[in-house]
Amino acid sequence: MTTSRARTTSVAQDHRLQELINELHAKHEPLTAGHVATYILELRRANPDDFGISVVTAEGDVLTAGDCDVPFTIQSISKPLTFGMALEELGEKTVSRYVGVEPSGDAFNSIWLHGGTNRPYNPMVNTGAIAVTALLHRRYGDRAFDLILERFSAMAGRPLSMDQAVYESERRTGHRNRAIAHLLLNFDLVHDTAEAALDVYFKQCSILVTTRDLATMAATLANVGRNPITGQHALVDMTSIKDVLSVMFTCGMYDYSGQWAYRVGVPAKSGVSGGVMAVVNRQLGIASYSPRLDAQGNSCRGIEVCVDLAARLGLHVFDCLNVGSSFLSSVR
Amino acid sequence: MTTSRARTTSVAQDHRLQELINELHAKHEPLTAGHVATYILELRRANPDDFGISVVTAEGDVLTAGDCDVPFTIQSISKPLTFGMALEELGEKTVSRYVGVEPSGDAFNSIWLHGGTNRPYNPMVNTGAIAVTALLHRRYGDRAFDLILERFSAMAGRPLSMDQAVYESERRTGHRNRAIAHLLLNFDLVHDTAEAALDVYFKQCSILVTTRDLATMAATLANVGRNPITGQHALVDMTSIKDVLSVMFTCGMYDYSGQWAYRVGVPAKSGVSGGVMAVVNRQLGIASYSPRLDAQGNSCRGIEVCVDLAARLGLHVFDCLNVGSSFLSSVR
Amino acid sequence: MTTSRARTTSVAQDHRLQELINELHAKHEPLTAGHVATYILELRRANPDDFGISVVTAEGDVLTAGDCDVPFTIQSISKPLTFGMALEELGEKTVSRYVGVEPSGDAFNSIWLHGGTNRPYNPMVNTGAIAVTALLHRRYGDRAFDLILERFSAMAGRPLSMDQAVYESERRTGHRNRAIAHLLLNFDLVHDTAEAALDVYFKQCSILVTTRDLATMAATLANVGRNPITGQHALVDMTSIKDVLSVMFTCGMYDYSGQWAYRVGVPAKSGVSGGVMAVVNRQLGIASYSPRLDAQGNSCRGIEVCVDLAARLGLHVFDCLNVGSSFLSSVR
Amino acid sequence: MTTSRARTTSVAQDHRLQELINELHAKHEPLTAGHVATYILELRRANPDDFGISVVTAEGDVLTAGDCDVPFTIQSISKPLTFGMALEELGEKTVSRYVGVEPSGDAFNSIWLHGGTNRPYNPMVNTGAIAVTALLHRRYGDRAFDLILERFSAMAGRPLSMDQAVYESERRTGHRNRAIAHLLLNFDLVHDTAEAALDVYFKQCSILVTTRDLATMAATLANVGRNPITGQHALVDMTSIKDVLSVMFTCGMYDYSGQWAYRVGVPAKSGVSGGVMAVVNRQLGIASYSPRLDAQGNSCRGIEVCVDLAARLGLHVFDCLNVGSSFLSSVR
Repeated sequence: MTTSRARTTSVAQDHRLQELINELHAKHEPLTAGHVATYILELRRANPDDFGISVVTAEGDVLTAGDCDVPFTIQSISKPLTFGMALEELGEKTVSRYVGVEPSGDAFNSIWLHGGTNRPYNPMVNTGAIAVTALLHRRYGDRAFDLILERFSAMAGRPLSMDQAVYESERRTGHRNRAIAHLLLNFDLVHDTAEAALDVYFKQCSILVTTRDLATMAATLANVGRNPITGQHALVDMTSIKDVLSVMFTCGMYDYSGQWAYRVGVPAKSGVSGGVMAVVNRQLGIASYSPRLDAQGNSCRGIEVCVDLAARLGLHVFDCLNVGSSFLSSVR
Repeated sequence: MTTSRARTTSVAQDHRLQELINELHAKHEPLTAGHVATYILELRRANPDDFGISVVTAEGDVLTAGDCDVPFTIQSISKPLTFGMALEELGEKTVSRYVGVEPSGDAFNSIWLHGGTNRPYNPMVNTGAIAVTALLHRRYGDRAFDLILERFSAMAGRPLSMDQAVYESERRTGHRNRAIAHLLLNFDLVHDTAEAALDVYFKQCSILVTTRDLATMAATLANVGRNPITGQHALVDMTSIKDVLSVMFTCGMYDYSGQWAYRVGVPAKSGVSGGVMAVVNRQLGIASYSPRLDAQGNSCRGIEVCVDLAARLGLHVFDCLNVGSSFLSSVR
Repeated sequence: MTTSRARTTSVAQDHRLQELINELHAKHEPLTAGHVATYILELRRANPDDFGISVVTAEGDVLTAGDCDVPFTIQSISKPLTFGMALEELGEKTVSRYVGVEPSGDAFNSIWLHGGTNRPYNPMVNTGAIAVTALLHRRYGDRAFDLILERFSAMAGRPLSMDQAVYESERRTGHRNRAIAHLLLNFDLVHDTAEAALDVYFKQCSILVTTRDLATMAATLANVGRNPITGQHALVDMTSIKDVLSVMFTCGMYDYSGQWAYRVGVPAKSGVSGGVMAVVNRQLGIASYSPRLDAQGNSCRGIEVCVDLAARLGLHVFDCLNVGSSFLSSVR
Repeated sequence: MTTSRARTTSVAQDHRLQELINELHAKHEPLTAGHVATYILELRRANPDDFGISVVTAEGDVLTAGDCDVPFTIQSISKPLTFGMALEELGEKTVSRYVGVEPSGDAFNSIWLHGGTNRPYNPMVNTGAIAVTALLHRRYGDRAFDLILERFSAMAGRPLSMDQAVYESERRTGHRNRAIAHLLLNFDLVHDTAEAALDVYFKQCSILVTTRDLATMAATLANVGRNPITGQHALVDMTSIKDVLSVMFTCGMYDYSGQWAYRVGVPAKSGVSGGVMAVVNRQLGIASYSPRLDAQGNSCRGIEVCVDLAARLGLHVFDCLNVGSSFLSSVR
């Protein structure tokens, strides 16, 4: 268990937050409900007991507990990040022709498109995320994945890389996603290059991160696009960040999104490998890793950690006492 | 066009906000798209040109433009308010057995229940709202409507009353809602009293309000349950207020809710008579009235007014510059 | 076990058919899979072991095995019969404005209407059957049920009556059907009298029959509308009979209809009390009674009896050897 | 307009049938409703005015009117034929593990699988037809298409061939079918060879036929598998033929199947190029070609021709006067 600090702030405040994270890690470690995802062999190999929590403040303080340096593939947590890239690079108008922003009420891997518009419901479900990556691929061609990796690395503040075995396994067995790509092709939402775009998508999902990375990425979103540790402007368009956070809030946790908005109340995204990334606007980036998933595909421990953090720190956007003041004043 | 003021604050700030409201009223008055709801005769009688905007601050300042004193029936805008009452009176645990909090992806009058749980998706669609009112009726019996009217009046800061003709018309022709009530009865979500509970629901939808009332009600929600004009504590449970705002945010604008969360980014609820009520936590209550509706059943002008207000005042919860400071500092 | 005979035909042929019925009764009596319907108390009281088979030929021979004189409520088997009455009395054009003839792929008690037309899918699901009865009620008012009872009695060849307790129970607890009736009212498919029409529907479902009755009713349909025992013309319009048999064939066995058309291949209708009625055009009426139902709501033994009868007698309409010759020549 | 005759039967009967066909051709030629399918360029090139009718009797008489020798691609009319092959070659038990026999209530190109079983609803929709062809491909590998072509040729009584341009176009643009194949792969309903199986499917749909061919194929089905002109036993298993006809009857005309069973009442299959093939068991094969389609994807003229033929010849399986006697006695 480590506590790093990128720059000096109130030692006392950090100390209280560190204690809270330690407490929640200890509280939820005994929780062994849920099952490790098995749809590809490589995910099955995860250690089900791994459990890490990281928090990065908008000032760049890093607080962690447990297995915060265990790498895992980012999977669906990549979705809001590529959506943000597409918004920045192509503009909201173009992107909105290819993907909507409505919650679907369906599971993450639903193949349904929105009846009225024949577009994916939103960029947080597989249909929408593949459409978004296809847009990036269409614009950047063979460079698309490198640019994605570069952007993710800037947000994480260190050079990230891909898990080759997971990527190859997804490419080989991702029949459902391949079905989605061809369905999108059928509706002119993907262009000539379904297989090539899909390849970028499989790669993007296979990027390796730790909770420390994810919390830093979340803090970059919270900090108006500027990585609070490196100081780099990883995202530049404030409107796009607002759009990303909005869609994470309403659609980020699959068909648990309504419950999440109700119980936790901050923009978040989960992935099938067990990661959860949450953004407290202007304040915090939060990440959790624990591979056991519930029926909706969200990390069991990850949800409980975030519910508790939100309650204890008053993070919910509609918390009556949350008036934008520093979270630290309200550790309850 | 009038500007009342309940108590003294910064005359200069109010002046700038008043100018903005006037400007938006003038800007959107020419918008005549959409159609007045026709499903009951009484709604058809609305003057399609009526257009009022009211804003009430958490300090109790009232700013208005246009037809802010034209009465109309509250309709679906009553749904979050009765949901809040049920949460306060029965507790979140009980209420959650009867209604969920997930967006449905369906239209407001869908008769579908959530497949896994056989509960209504959320309290903002008719199925869920009827289940909520039935819970209140089950607890309070014949007094249920009087208590609802009393609570709404406390939030509005004046005694409200019901439009008898609309109520009778809804009761006579509300076949779809009657179908819903019997379906809920079939799933044990409504008890012996489907018709009696439905009667309360029809009455609650027929309560007459003005935009001035709705903005005051919204300001009461924004002001942690205390009516900022009368000072009365119309709602007492802060957790329930948070819950109400959360569900309004994710489900309040029918199947436009995702778009609304994206473009406007504040909790809101619309009604078929043409009202829109929006809550800017700790800051503002906003209301608009214009009877012409778009395909999703939301007031056309109401949406545009709120989109503009959110952009100009930086109200979106995930606006990067919205750090809880007074909105007035950010009139752009 | 009894064998009655209304008029003299080939004693030898009857003997072989009687032996087959006895054999199938003995074969399937040990089958105790399935569950008695429990949705109303009165159905729960059925003796789960009751098992009767009756066959009536187009010549009026009656062959039976087991509990062929145990009365049970007709339930959904009334649906094709009232549909036939509506076709005769109101004409196919009128009826088709209120109900379609497409299989729905849904369960019998689905509340869905056909998306394109806002009509019930077909008259064999509850929505369609209630619409049909409402049409009869609209035409005949208070006399509707008496006329239905009269017609059913003419088909059965004896005066039938209603089970008062079942009727009252259905009326009291039929919330789902009441929901359907109000939904139909909402779409102008039922007129002012939803509750009164529903009352006729609940009564019609509560008419008491035996397998002997049902087989005679089926034989009346097979015999171009003329009761082969009494000689009475219970149905007069040949086109309507064709229409009834068509819809029974494609939609009569709930969401098992496709399987039934495939495995048995004759028009049939089942009811929740455990009855099955099948029509072999120009040849036979078949009925079975056994209250234990499978997951689709069809009698477990009833299905097996009909599968075997169809195979042994070559009854399937697309059986290559079924060229309309007398079934008896082909007892295999 | 030509009338060929393969072998001598009653000249008088043929004469009356020929007159009827001529009359219906003349009657429906002015019908220009509907639109030629445009989803691939090659189909767009069809002459919308082409109109041919062919009837082949179980005795081998061939009667035709109009453009009975214009070739067009068989498209979905291949579905029941490959289904029959799969039943014969692999057995009903194996085939039923991969595809059901229930009507779906959905459009032909729906990508939905049956919720309970995760199988395609039936072999007449694209999902089911692709699953069936994949089964044949799995068994026969590279020879699969040759065997299909051989079998179709035996049924038509002449060597058929494939339209290379249509095949290539379908292969290039059949994104929706490719999506389906990968979805089937996802559910283990297609094996390693999704693309190869799909290739066979595209080829099978591109086989060129005339109405003369289709009517002969239908007559082969009507004649218990024996081509009535060549005398060749093109299909050998009577049970499989019964199964094919059953599924054509309940599912063959897309989401018009219920209407078709009601109005026409004989097993039939339509294709997107404008063909319709109908089978009157033991009596007739009927085919029509006219490229203009209605909203359900069925040939407008084709439906009207079959409705009239069924009415005039009493072909409906539940026609009260249809007792398996020769159709010719009942020309009305």
